Amino acid sequence: MAEGASTIRHVSENMPEINAISYANGQLGLLDQTSLPAESRVVWTNDYREVIRSVQALRVRGAPALGVVAAYAVVMAAEHIEAPSRDEFLSRLREAGAEIANARPTAVNMGWAVERMLKVANLHGDLPAVRAALLVEAQTLQQEDEDANRTMGGHGAGLLPEGGGVLTHCNTGALATAGYGTALGVIRAAWEGGKRFNVFATETRPVMQGARLTTWELVQLGIPATLIVDSAAGLLMRSGEITCVITGADRIAANGDTANKIGTYALAVLAREHGLPFYIAAPTSTVDLSIASGEGIPIEERDASEVTGFREVRTAAEGISARNPAFDVTPCQYIHAVVTEQGVSRPPYSESLDLAVRAGMGGRSVGLDD
Amino acid sequence: MAEGASTIRHVSENMPEINAISYANGQLGLLDQTSLPAESRVVWTNDYREVIRSVQALRVRGAPALGVVAAYAVVMAAEHIEAPSRDEFLSRLREAGAEIANARPTAVNMGWAVERMLKVANLHGDLPAVRAALLVEAQTLQQEDEDANRTMGGHGAGLLPEGGGVLTHCNTGALATAGYGTALGVIRAAWEGGKRFNVFATETRPVMQGARLTTWELVQLGIPATLIVDSAAGLLMRSGEITCVITGADRIAANGDTANKIGTYALAVLAREHGLPFYIAAPTSTVDLSIASGEGIPIEERDASEVTGFREVRTAAEGISARNPAFDVTPCQYIHAVVTEQGVSRPPYSESLDLAVRAGMGGRSVGLDD
Repeated sequence: MAEGASTIRHVSENMPEINAISYANGQLGLLDQTSLPAESRVVWTNDYREVIRSVQALRVRGAPALGVVAAYAVVMAAEHIEAPSRDEFLSRLREAGAEIANARPTAVNMGWAVERMLKVANLHGDLPAVRAALLVEAQTLQQEDEDANRTMGGHGAGLLPEGGGVLTHCNTGALATAGYGTALGVIRAAWEGGKRFNVFATETRPVMQGARLTTWELVQLGIPATLIVDSAAGLLMRSGEITCVITGADRIAANGDTANKIGTYALAVLAREHGLPFYIAAPTSTVDLSIASGEGIPIEERDASEVTGFREVRTAAEGISARNPAFDVTPCQYIHAVVTEQGVSRPPYSESLDLAVRAGMGGRSVGLDD
Repeated sequence: MAEGASTIRHVSENMPEINAISYANGQLGLLDQTSLPAESRVVWTNDYREVIRSVQALRVRGAPALGVVAAYAVVMAAEHIEAPSRDEFLSRLREAGAEIANARPTAVNMGWAVERMLKVANLHGDLPAVRAALLVEAQTLQQEDEDANRTMGGHGAGLLPEGGGVLTHCNTGALATAGYGTALGVIRAAWEGGKRFNVFATETRPVMQGARLTTWELVQLGIPATLIVDSAAGLLMRSGEITCVITGADRIAANGDTANKIGTYALAVLAREHGLPFYIAAPTSTVDLSIASGEGIPIEERDASEVTGFREVRTAAEGISARNPAFDVTPCQYIHAVVTEQGVSRPPYSESLDLAVRAGMGGRSVGLDD
């Protein structure tokens, strides 16, 4: 199939990899995702509190990417802490770590990464060794995430159809991770493997990660795709144009209940109503075995101004209230499979996810040993 | 209940009625809804083709309002047609009527109003009498629509809960009709009757009729309400905050299948998933007994630029495709009741809607007699 082969080469060889997170000379460089796709600019800082502000302003977002950023933020905090003793240093590093972990509440990855970094800090004696080990750990975590995504892509590609239409929500590509992506990585891997299907991307109000970021990545990857408003998914499932849904995750509870971008739950309900498979793709670092079910996952409520307007343009009438939950929880019974770097987990997730986490890099986290 | 009584007075007496459509001195005045809520301005014209352009640009929208506008557009066409004979006049009026009826495809009301106007034109002999009769008929149709909405409000108010949360989609208020509104009219009538519940309004991408128009009407009516993105409805149903959904309709088939703003179908599926009632409110002029089921309803696909950006701001990456279906069809089995000016129709709709249409003003339309 000449056309397919040509497209595969295009995706794999000609396109530069998107790099959302860089670390060099004690500075973290973040591709400012609030400016995309109009402008592609990298903002550098050596201040971990500036990183927290960038996280809260969504200059970088996506659960796996937030884990990587949190790890580098700990590195940066450690560089600047001056303390009279190792205990005092570690105490102040833990305080900085708590600030970092709490930058945003829903994604588990920031807390997970901070815990992992603090564990490393505890293993070393003098400060230069601690700082060196922290940098190595952050770089390792970043590389592991990208590797996990590529592996995950391979595991998940088999789930996607030959023909039909695959819908994804929000942005779960290279921009949302250390590289390659989770759900978008699975779509990419299936394409690289030669499968051909229509890709649909929701725009993902209110922040438009789908319209702004996912379309940008897909255009760069040379994968043709169609943008729709969030509320059009039902019509396209009913018409038979969408035949499968795959999204990422911000936190997965032990039973498989999954917090992800607001609107994911509606897509899962619609998928079930139409008899279509609904998949989650996320590294095991996103699985939080300490939380039994989705009821325990905190849902971030962001500023109402994201809903009452679009960027600087006020859309709603003055005097109206607004609610802006940034995530919702999709109960496990709507999820046909969870793809991790360990493979494809099927229900019952309380068993299959537990196995995946223990087999995966998540198994090395502090939380799991405690 | 002092507080309720106070609010009722506020709603009924202190607030000026919103008037989206005026006709005076051979000119049609349309409140430009693309400028709301930032700016409130009326655009006047005596050219029916300019009215068609306004309809296509969404300066006026909403199925019942489009019916009224179509009627006045026929009046304006009749004013300017110069023909050597009555037959030639009627022939050219039919041509203009076809242009008007086809301005937008999904709402049945434009075609319904044009048919009704042409029937009146056929009843009169000389041109001055035809023109006078057409104006009277358009004014009658406009008044009937507002009366129907107030009556509908009374019928539907009993369906809404005391307490809980009522979700509505798009704009179905005074702006979408000759006055008072359909689904929003039912909400208003329930409030005027003293019922208290939380009102939730979806923003309704891509054109934001909910964010721009429904919030504007609700603020003016003094009914507190909360704006959400379209995709947040699922979370708020699951949390128990939304307990009921009511929307308008652009066309209702004989079996009760209902075309309405894109995203209505998803709300209906979500309502059923949560065991919540889902209601439609629309005048019998919106019921199209000539179409057996929703499969026969044409769905307007609007320009992709509504999805790839927001007003002048491009959001999506260059090179991406987009789909922009403006409506979807909710199958009758998801609809608990259809409220018309004739009362509350329950399944099976093939019987109950037939009765309502024959009892209502729709029964006077040409289509039903043929």
